[in-house]
Amino acid sequence: MPFIELESHLPGITGLLEFRKDSALPIRELTQFLLRGPSSLTEGERELIATVVSNGNQCRFCTAAHTAAADLLLGETDTARQVKENIDAAPVSEKMRSLLTIADLVRVSGKAVTEEAINNAKEAGASDIEIHDTVLIAALFCLYNRYVDGLSTALPADPAYFGTLAERLVNHGYTRLPQGYDHLKK
Amino acid sequence: MPFIELESHLPGITGLLEFRKDSALPIRELTQFLLRGPSSLTEGERELIATVVSNGNQCRFCTAAHTAAADLLLGETDTARQVKENIDAAPVSEKMRSLLTIADLVRVSGKAVTEEAINNAKEAGASDIEIHDTVLIAALFCLYNRYVDGLSTALPADPAYFGTLAERLVNHGYTRLPQGYDHLKK
Repeated sequence: MPFIELESHLPGITGLLEFRKDSALPIRELTQFLLRGPSSLTEGERELIATVVSNGNQCRFCTAAHTAAADLLLGETDTARQVKENIDAAPVSEKMRSLLTIADLVRVSGKAVTEEAINNAKEAGASDIEIHDTVLIAALFCLYNRYVDGLSTALPADPAYFGTLAERLVNHGYTRLPQGYDHLKK
Repeated sequence: MPFIELESHLPGITGLLEFRKDSALPIRELTQFLLRGPSSLTEGERELIATVVSNGNQCRFCTAAHTAAADLLLGETDTARQVKENIDAAPVSEKMRSLLTIADLVRVSGKAVTEEAINNAKEAGASDIEIHDTVLIAALFCLYNRYVDGLSTALPADPAYFGTLAERLVNHGYTRLPQGYDHLKK
């Protein structure tokens, strides 16, 4: 049971974005810019950052949603699965490995990010903007995970919900309200 | 030294908001809505939430900035100081004490927020919107603290900087770029 009265057919973040549309709008816009805006990181790579952070924070709704989005963008399910298990052994480029490592440090604390982790990313070819965006995406998902779990939002009754949500996130981004999956709602 | 190349005269969050204005805009708008928008919590009370979270995350820049803003709004420095020391003993209403307690739990993890903490807030008279906003403000400062420290931003050379920054935040809010304190910049 959520801690506040949310529409019961809207699980996870979706009920919160509906509860308070004024705060939802800039959150949606920030997410759209960071995860779908112009970037030298692919949309799939950016969804992996969201996935790693959500997984580390044990936020089930966000982890399932962004794993599904990453899977759809990458066209396979192995990378996200392995990245969640062990960044060091996952099948990603050295640059992505170093950025995912930074994201996971940001998740623990801003102060946990070491000069060594940053230097590894720079040596692997990461630009200042890529490092900046990785830190900010990780910080944004620390917000999302706390928002979703701090108010004890519900998981969807049907796990197929996440596949449909991922299609919306991949095809329409974060600024358009999800529609057309009412049959999957809780 | 910051981990990425920021304008050296802009300490803490200010250099980051300048580095990437596209992401800065929705962050500023979200903060303005939550900390300065219509609310049954006073601006001072909302700055106390920001202060408690930043202090718990040991983010020196954010703690100093929001302590100074809370002090200015409350017209005294005792409350913010005591809230940072011990929420249970601080001179705030029972409702604020319960909300600050929730904020500090959100800081640790979304999953750390207990039904008991929520019930305490409701029994002390907190509304669903007040609980929602407390959780989201706490989550937002978990973003800010990680952004500021995860990129190793600098503190201002002169601590008087924070008094001038607080005047800007109190008189002009979060969506107007700070100006007129160049003499205090690092």
